[in-house]
Amino acid sequence: MARVSQEHLDARRRQIIDGAVRSFTQGGFHATSMQDVLREAGLSAGAVYRYFSGKEELIAAIVGEVFGTVRGAFEDAANQDPPPLPDKLLGQVLNIVLNGRVGGGSIEFPRLVLQVWAETLRNEELAAPLRQGFVEMRAAWGGLVDAYREAGLMPDDVEPDHVARTMMALAQGFIAQRALFGDAEVEQLEGGLRALMRMEVPKVS
Amino acid sequence: MARVSQEHLDARRRQIIDGAVRSFTQGGFHATSMQDVLREAGLSAGAVYRYFSGKEELIAAIVGEVFGTVRGAFEDAANQDPPPLPDKLLGQVLNIVLNGRVGGGSIEFPRLVLQVWAETLRNEELAAPLRQGFVEMRAAWGGLVDAYREAGLMPDDVEPDHVARTMMALAQGFIAQRALFGDAEVEQLEGGLRALMRMEVPKVS
Repeated sequence: MARVSQEHLDARRRQIIDGAVRSFTQGGFHATSMQDVLREAGLSAGAVYRYFSGKEELIAAIVGEVFGTVRGAFEDAANQDPPPLPDKLLGQVLNIVLNGRVGGGSIEFPRLVLQVWAETLRNEELAAPLRQGFVEMRAAWGGLVDAYREAGLMPDDVEPDHVARTMMALAQGFIAQRALFGDAEVEQLEGGLRALMRMEVPKVS
Repeated sequence: MARVSQEHLDARRRQIIDGAVRSFTQGGFHATSMQDVLREAGLSAGAVYRYFSGKEELIAAIVGEVFGTVRGAFEDAANQDPPPLPDKLLGQVLNIVLNGRVGGGSIEFPRLVLQVWAETLRNEELAAPLRQGFVEMRAAWGGLVDAYREAGLMPDDVEPDHVARTMMALAQGFIAQRALFGDAEVEQLEGGLRALMRMEVPKVS
């Protein structure tokens, strides 16, 4: 086998993932075959199967890319003082996911997410990376909550993981709405969350 | 055909829907056949098909039941003065959905919801009642926002529909987490939303 540089390997991997994202978002997870992915990536079966054993590994790689991109957004946010408020950060993260390299601005991308969710219910190979990503995202949001508390923006007695789960639920629910009903806009979610953050909450209720 | 009372018709319909919920939550939407539903309901094909033409109509009826139950919770809330705060009401609604007649406390119910979501992407007969329910739920949450504003709990310049969409996203995202990761608790979501409602939001940001 010819020696190839790491750079070449990475570029080839990138080419396959990009082709897979296009195939899956156009055709849906179920209806898309590895043949479709090969065609879209413009590569031979030998070239693709050297990197990915099948659709499950491709989806796991795509999930990893999405979470990696989001992780970068959180690291940026953690370096700002004061940290961006939850509504702004949620909007930034969703825009990155929907319009970044992976989502590609495709209206089909949220629909692919819903298909992958349903698929994970009966496919542990898909479920594992999703579960891992959820743990990491919760840790990232939890870190932000610490920053809010230090900046005096949030009371000390809140449970960071509960806020993290709630922020994740907002993101996941938004993606579900976008996939199911089409007309969900990031600005609407930002505005709604902002309104909740501005509520006058009685001390005792 | 023998004349039967409306009461009898309603009870029979009820019996079929209950059987369908048990079948679908145990087996999943795809793997469950109408035969499974007949067996679970303890009725003949003739008795069931008189009411429902197939799985799609059964799912549509179940969706209608869920939304009907939730609508009742909102009507109760709208009659309270001051209205229950968003975190409490969201918790009440989710508990009704998860533990009420339809959800039945089943850990499988949120997984069925995810399967139905994915199914609606390619099945307009399922998508229509879901879309209709989403519009109704948004209207109900929007009415609550009006009540919050009248009670001085929320600023006048908020857009009720944006808050409504955000509350729906929380509920949908929570159901996704419960289905995908299993360990999501209603109290965690309530606590997280409560913390966000208690944030100190700078006037300009």
